[in-house]
Amino acid sequence: MPEFAVPTPKRRRGRPRGGATDARERIIDAAAHEFGEVGYDGATMRGIAARAGVDAALVHHYFGTKADLFAETVDFPLRPDRVIPQILAGPREAVGESILRFVLEQLEDPATRKRAVALLRASLGNRLATPLLAAFLQRELIDRIATSLDVPDAKLRASLVASQIAGLIAARYLAQLPALVEAPIDELVARIGPTVQRYLLE
Amino acid sequence: MPEFAVPTPKRRRGRPRGGATDARERIIDAAAHEFGEVGYDGATMRGIAARAGVDAALVHHYFGTKADLFAETVDFPLRPDRVIPQILAGPREAVGESILRFVLEQLEDPATRKRAVALLRASLGNRLATPLLAAFLQRELIDRIATSLDVPDAKLRASLVASQIAGLIAARYLAQLPALVEAPIDELVARIGPTVQRYLLE
Repeated sequence: MPEFAVPTPKRRRGRPRGGATDARERIIDAAAHEFGEVGYDGATMRGIAARAGVDAALVHHYFGTKADLFAETVDFPLRPDRVIPQILAGPREAVGESILRFVLEQLEDPATRKRAVALLRASLGNRLATPLLAAFLQRELIDRIATSLDVPDAKLRASLVASQIAGLIAARYLAQLPALVEAPIDELVARIGPTVQRYLLE
Repeated sequence: MPEFAVPTPKRRRGRPRGGATDARERIIDAAAHEFGEVGYDGATMRGIAARAGVDAALVHHYFGTKADLFAETVDFPLRPDRVIPQILAGPREAVGESILRFVLEQLEDPATRKRAVALLRASLGNRLATPLLAAFLQRELIDRIATSLDVPDAKLRASLVASQIAGLIAARYLAQLPALVEAPIDELVARIGPTVQRYLLE
């Protein structure tokens, strides 16, 4: 696999190799190559299947959509395409705080946090990996939020939210700025929630 | 020089080597080692001078303070310790927009942008380099802003600003999210300025 293929390809050493496991692993490896070579937008389920030597139907059977397969391939810690519609369906005046609370509570789980840190570090640190994650976030998060919101400039609004949340994750979990590490979740939700609310809806 | 010593050590190939230039380069190399090994907080001007084989007074003569030397060593594109007091001395109700406009206008310069992107990429991408930049930002930016502001929780407030500005730089210049790349500076100042204002002063 090329070094830059995906930010954090899953390590599956030591797992038993069998028919189904073997096919799943070949598909993940093929997906890592395909995403790495042609990017998130350029990759196709058909191309990944061909590369793995399996039928495209099997790829869909195991992994669902391209977003599912990418999330699996890079070990993506959250599923924005599933979570965002749920949050946006809640009370409109609490959307900002709900998004913040959801993200921060997910990151309380050490395994999720470790994956998020590794993914952010790898994708920002490698100029070939950055566009891959950016395209995934654009298609599966920003465009979806933009479609759900009935406001002008929805893509700019969603992108501003992405900038604040990515910056918060970088500052609290990568740079570990003391005041952000020490602040309880409720405090961060109270301070940053209104920002997200304003970016999205005001 | 250890690979992780500093995010983006200056390349000085091709410059003429003379007495003063030679001493400056030895000091920069020594600083890169010292910051890399003991971190921003642990490094001392005296230790760097000893490592370079020069008198500590010469290090101060060429580079001023430790913050100056670090900024020079990593080719830091802005000087927060110089700029922030100027901005905070302006109209209080416009501090948020002033900070945003200053950062974005600086980044319009291609050379400054290139250095900022390289530094952010290197320092977030390398787990040994991240704390070095974080400690510099904490001491020279966050603590200085906190001292200048007469508000409670000043360090948390300044850290929130750092998270939004770092996230904006990452999203606009590293990930290059289209809506943020296309938005003119005035639009970004109008959208994000109030966030910075609220984080700092409201």
